[in-house]
Amino acid sequence: MDELIRLEHGSGGELSRRLVEEVIHPYVRCPASADLPDAARLDLAGPIALTTDSYVVDPLFFPGSDIGRLAVFGTCNDLAVSGARARALTLALVLEEGLPISVLRRVLASVKTAAAEAGVEVVTGDTKVIGRDTDGRRDRGVPTRDPGLYLNTAGVGEIVFEHLGPSLVRPGDRLIVSGPLGAHGVAVLGARENLSVAAGIRSDCALLWPLAERLFGLGPAVRFLRDATRGGLAAVSNELCRGMRFGITLRERDVPADPDVAVALDLLGLDALEVANEGVLVAVVAADAAEAAVALLRSHPTGCRAAIAGEITADGPGRVVLETRIGGRRLVDFPRGLLLPRIC
Amino acid sequence: MDELIRLEHGSGGELSRRLVEEVIHPYVRCPASADLPDAARLDLAGPIALTTDSYVVDPLFFPGSDIGRLAVFGTCNDLAVSGARARALTLALVLEEGLPISVLRRVLASVKTAAAEAGVEVVTGDTKVIGRDTDGRRDRGVPTRDPGLYLNTAGVGEIVFEHLGPSLVRPGDRLIVSGPLGAHGVAVLGARENLSVAAGIRSDCALLWPLAERLFGLGPAVRFLRDATRGGLAAVSNELCRGMRFGITLRERDVPADPDVAVALDLLGLDALEVANEGVLVAVVAADAAEAAVALLRSHPTGCRAAIAGEITADGPGRVVLETRIGGRRLVDFPRGLLLPRIC
Repeated sequence: MDELIRLEHGSGGELSRRLVEEVIHPYVRCPASADLPDAARLDLAGPIALTTDSYVVDPLFFPGSDIGRLAVFGTCNDLAVSGARARALTLALVLEEGLPISVLRRVLASVKTAAAEAGVEVVTGDTKVIGRDTDGRRDRGVPTRDPGLYLNTAGVGEIVFEHLGPSLVRPGDRLIVSGPLGAHGVAVLGARENLSVAAGIRSDCALLWPLAERLFGLGPAVRFLRDATRGGLAAVSNELCRGMRFGITLRERDVPADPDVAVALDLLGLDALEVANEGVLVAVVAADAAEAAVALLRSHPTGCRAAIAGEITADGPGRVVLETRIGGRRLVDFPRGLLLPRIC
Repeated sequence: MDELIRLEHGSGGELSRRLVEEVIHPYVRCPASADLPDAARLDLAGPIALTTDSYVVDPLFFPGSDIGRLAVFGTCNDLAVSGARARALTLALVLEEGLPISVLRRVLASVKTAAAEAGVEVVTGDTKVIGRDTDGRRDRGVPTRDPGLYLNTAGVGEIVFEHLGPSLVRPGDRLIVSGPLGAHGVAVLGARENLSVAAGIRSDCALLWPLAERLFGLGPAVRFLRDATRGGLAAVSNELCRGMRFGITLRERDVPADPDVAVALDLLGLDALEVANEGVLVAVVAADAAEAAVALLRSHPTGCRAAIAGEITADGPGRVVLETRIGGRRLVDFPRGLLLPRIC
């Protein structure tokens, strides 16, 4: 029978020790830090970037990815769009009582594989256990879903490209989207709700460092990078121009899209611009470097469908406008309402 | 009426933006990083230490401290016992649907105050929202306790003292405990269960950097530092000597204790050696520097009751022995069983 996580695994005693040594360390042990009690030592050159993200995606496993891979790639991607090459990650686990240890092992194996692909090391961690809505008092409530887990990864990277930021963006610059929108959201929702419309659609979860690194070769023509996760391209575009002296025009026909995903989004009543992605880079690049940037992105599999999807405008500062396929124009606002909860 | 956290606050749209800008940023905004999308830039000298901890303490507020203060001090303490002065923290929030925003503000205000006391800056963060055991499907279960939140803080510090570690510990070294054991555990349990026996007992939550810094002045006579959190002094001692060629003898009469806490622990059937502390430093120091170390610790309020509580022995390698008050000897093992769940 599969062993389950118990509250005792979180109390700092013998069971905590065994969980860490026997279950967690085989996947993420960092021998270099063995002599430090609860921290890792890093020798890094130059300025560093620091980021953090928690992952609460439900379900833990879905077509194309899982919470472990998402946590590693997501945090590395936040560093990449900040001009930094990921060097070290922390891994903090919050486990729900009753979680099968076999599930934890699957997640850790995925973390290990993803970290190896990203060329980054998990250098330190933490493990806590929480009760199931019963607050340690088992008589109070009856849990109604499978026990899960949450992850937090903080990332440290070496900044290799310093010139990025909304303040560097100018009217006339082009907005580039590195790949089709919406696959991650559909894949997670499809797995959660067992939707036939999502069959065959896989999360786009991917490392963005190879794309960012290619663009850095263009020098200061690259103005701004962002990964289009929660809130999608709509949120990224609005955050970029909010309070600035420029607006953004997106052209619907040029925004990369996948036909199967488009059909699924339509049937689910979701907007491709608002759905979370986990492997889509949004780049603002000077007009005269935009074609070169697209060619660079397309030279990598993750960016093979990259396109210039819009431009920065002096008109309508602070606003995002979509030129629709049928020739209309509509305002693209920050997404409102529920969208998809627990998507990353 | 108090506004409550909704799942929409976590979906990356307009409500997410407003939560971050209107509720979170007033407490932890770091203007220096305004141009980076989702990371902070740090310029640090020399080797750095990196650590992470999640905080799931229940209840969120308890006599002497709260989850926000705990998260800041706890992570700074992990850096301090690694020889590092804390320089920057991340703050990742996982909020339960239904949490009053006023409660979030109280926690953030506490984070801000604690960070100022610690001389450390919260430089980047993340916010997620989770449903209440109903997995976004509200018809499935009836939550039975107040909605809460979890915090994760990762910390980066500059390593100022390199020579620490179990491998430097030698038989004859003294084990010093910086203050009375058990107050944190009793304070949290008392608040959770509304126990009269815990009345007046406050968590010992405190910054350990001032104590560690004093000890670093002793140079290589300082061998090993650790904060005695989950699993208490019993876990720290066993972790230190496990697999090593030395054992540890603790003297019950010399371990700092508070009479009120001792009575409460007795009534609750808890062992002072096993209960979590949040402001107790355990230091292993060469015998000829031990008295000086105690004097240095006592020169700071947090260490005013510091004492030499045991020593490192060549006998019984890997084992921790307690010389009891009545002259007996008993083995101190890793804590087993449940102890206190959700204590930090």
